[in-house]
Amino acid sequence: MLKARYKFWLEKKGEVVVGNGKVSLLKLIDEVGSIQKAAEKMGMSYRHAWGFVQKIEKRSGVKFLETQVGGREGGGARLTREGKEFLKKYSAFRDGIEEFIERKFKTAFKR
Amino acid sequence: MLKARYKFWLEKKGEVVVGNGKVSLLKLIDEVGSIQKAAEKMGMSYRHAWGFVQKIEKRSGVKFLETQVGGREGGGARLTREGKEFLKKYSAFRDGIEEFIERKFKTAFKR
Repeated sequence: MLKARYKFWLEKKGEVVVGNGKVSLLKLIDEVGSIQKAAEKMGMSYRHAWGFVQKIEKRSGVKFLETQVGGREGGGARLTREGKEFLKKYSAFRDGIEEFIERKFKTAFKR
Repeated sequence: MLKARYKFWLEKKGEVVVGNGKVSLLKLIDEVGSIQKAAEKMGMSYRHAWGFVQKIEKRSGVKFLETQVGGREGGGARLTREGKEFLKKYSAFRDGIEEFIERKFKTAFKR
């Protein structure tokens, strides 16, 4: 059966700033409070996850994470206010796009 | 500056049926009346263009082109009625999606 597929992301100067993978990672880091734990849950190495965060921060110019080193909890990470703001905008951007595309597809191909 | 990027295409059984490249090629073939001439205009080899057409026909189950071999004009190709119908549906599907995404992006990021 024929299906509509789509992909969207944000770019700055021709470089990908955020796609869905990076957004999920950032949200998960905030939820579990640690890059290490979030990386584990997503089945990626800490190094890889950290690299992702570095890239998105560098490319977007937004500081997404506040990190704490050591302490009783062994360090932690959470979204900055600016990071939350950006992710909120990103969600607002994405909301409804998939449904719109699906609807257009169904109407055009009468499925 | 931050920009929204997107891509959409049709798939069948996990294989890409049509994206924009293939659609442009098919339309051009119909316009100039020849695979060879259309391929030249798009800077691709005849072989490559022919392969594209084969792929899209096989994957979609739609016979897109009618070809004539030889004759005074040295053969030619044009869209079948079924092919035109399919491309019309594809255009109807795509129409307005880009504008919708742009509008959503501008609203979310206030640009």
